[in-house]
Amino acid sequence: MRGAVPFRMSRPGGEYVASAPEFAAVDWGTSRLRVWLMARDGAVLGERKADEGLEAAGRAGFGETLENHLAALDAPAALPVVVCGMAGSRQGWVEAPYVDCPADPQGIAGGAVQAPHDLRRVYILPGMANRDRAAPDVMRGEETQLLGMLQLRGPESFTAIMPGTHCKWVSVTRGAVAAFRTWITGELFALLSRHSILRHSIGSDAPPPSPLDDAFLDGVDTMLENPEGVTSRLFSVRAGGLLFADSARATAARLSGLLIGAEIADARTLYGADGTCVLVGGNALSALYEVALRRAGFAAETVDADAVVRAGLLDAARRLPGFGSGRQ
Amino acid sequence: MRGAVPFRMSRPGGEYVASAPEFAAVDWGTSRLRVWLMARDGAVLGERKADEGLEAAGRAGFGETLENHLAALDAPAALPVVVCGMAGSRQGWVEAPYVDCPADPQGIAGGAVQAPHDLRRVYILPGMANRDRAAPDVMRGEETQLLGMLQLRGPESFTAIMPGTHCKWVSVTRGAVAAFRTWITGELFALLSRHSILRHSIGSDAPPPSPLDDAFLDGVDTMLENPEGVTSRLFSVRAGGLLFADSARATAARLSGLLIGAEIADARTLYGADGTCVLVGGNALSALYEVALRRAGFAAETVDADAVVRAGLLDAARRLPGFGSGRQ
Repeated sequence: MRGAVPFRMSRPGGEYVASAPEFAAVDWGTSRLRVWLMARDGAVLGERKADEGLEAAGRAGFGETLENHLAALDAPAALPVVVCGMAGSRQGWVEAPYVDCPADPQGIAGGAVQAPHDLRRVYILPGMANRDRAAPDVMRGEETQLLGMLQLRGPESFTAIMPGTHCKWVSVTRGAVAAFRTWITGELFALLSRHSILRHSIGSDAPPPSPLDDAFLDGVDTMLENPEGVTSRLFSVRAGGLLFADSARATAARLSGLLIGAEIADARTLYGADGTCVLVGGNALSALYEVALRRAGFAAETVDADAVVRAGLLDAARRLPGFGSGRQ
Repeated sequence: MRGAVPFRMSRPGGEYVASAPEFAAVDWGTSRLRVWLMARDGAVLGERKADEGLEAAGRAGFGETLENHLAALDAPAALPVVVCGMAGSRQGWVEAPYVDCPADPQGIAGGAVQAPHDLRRVYILPGMANRDRAAPDVMRGEETQLLGMLQLRGPESFTAIMPGTHCKWVSVTRGAVAAFRTWITGELFALLSRHSILRHSIGSDAPPPSPLDDAFLDGVDTMLENPEGVTSRLFSVRAGGLLFADSARATAARLSGLLIGAEIADARTLYGADGTCVLVGGNALSALYEVALRRAGFAAETVDADAVVRAGLLDAARRLPGFGSGRQ
């Protein structure tokens, strides 16, 4: 956890001006909290990271938790705050109802809700929902990363791939979020390796799968080459452990490859591999996706998850009413 | 748990002879133990059922556990025993190594191993393995049900569908087990409904899915009509709970329908729906499969799980050396 950094010169090589924080950007998820002091131009003036996600903050109080971190950053009194993530869910600080998909950045920012907090203005951004009865879907947090990607990339259409416990594939067209779908690949890997019959072959101390593992690549290729459903492949991972004494490491890597390969094979039929694809990177999972996507024919560029969420919070802040000096 | 029944007249309508037990048939699985006293003609002369599967019996002793049940059935001293199921696994009483697939009934019975037991002969039947490196698979217990199905049906080819925690689809051709594959559908349902994010929508007291639930049928149809992978559908079950306040019962039923539908859609491409299909029934899961198979175009007949495992143990007994009176 890093404390406050001194306000720094924000335009190296240009006219030197001291930056003052314009707002605090907060990514408040299920298990993690990140707070950045942000200058008007998006420069980061201070950062805090903590394991005070939804559950911990729910017990300690959302307002108190936030103020503790702002105080540690020497944030000015009344500095406004923009929050994205699960803090806006029904179990969070205050519910920011889902904005319907498709939505453009103004529509997303317009769904922000003010948290009940006396010390400063705190806006919580909404999630997004696809209310199609045949394939309903929701996101919360990723919409802000998408705002950031739109800011950084401009209006060109692209497919965003956002790995995580629940990986989202998102069509972004004409500057708006057009459609999305969720695969629970990360959660399935955790469940199967810890709680299913596969745990007997994987154990509790297998290292996390590496994109260099042959068994991972083999699992990916198996699903890319075979249109068969993945659930018929899962037991074969266990059988391989029994019949061929596959190592715990290879078994975990094969399982990961099968699940990620199944997701990508599936998404390829929905999104195609030809257009521009942008992978949100910055965690161990996205390194696996990067390799698997290449094998599936995707030429994905990678963006940093923290950078795009900050850019998204900055974009939303600029669209919120009465926000920042000089843009009341 | 039922105790011994008196030795009964085994040929009603024919010449009446008192049946004496010829052997004890035992289905010894991970969590359950069933013991039947069997007459030479397959009549059941006594039955015991208990929750003394692999783990409980491993602690109490396999030999002791078996003798307790045989004593409760007044089994004659030295009555031989034939066992199928997980008792023959590496973690069981004694390992009966997998017989390679394909195998005919003589090949399966020939893989039986004698358990280390002084009081009587106890044969443990082997499981079966598919050692294909691309799709390895194993079964243990089902091979005995297949022996029984071959006995009851004769040499006509058929596809056996054997629901359970791990559902097996088996090609039986020319009187032999030709190939098989496992789907972990039942285990996935339990894991997802109890441990995944879906648990928030299902809760702990939802009734088990019924084949009459609209949401079950809808889930089945969704997967039969859409070739997309099932893992992209799982999150939509959670999103439906959030967006449409689907009941716990409907959510559980939809999940079950999606998973069973995915399995059947997948198996249909491998096995086809045109040939003779035999569904092993007798549990709540197989009632769900029966309805889902019909929607997928399968005209499956149903056989009773207990009846086929007993018929299989009888068939194996007849093939074992030095077994039964007059067939030494």
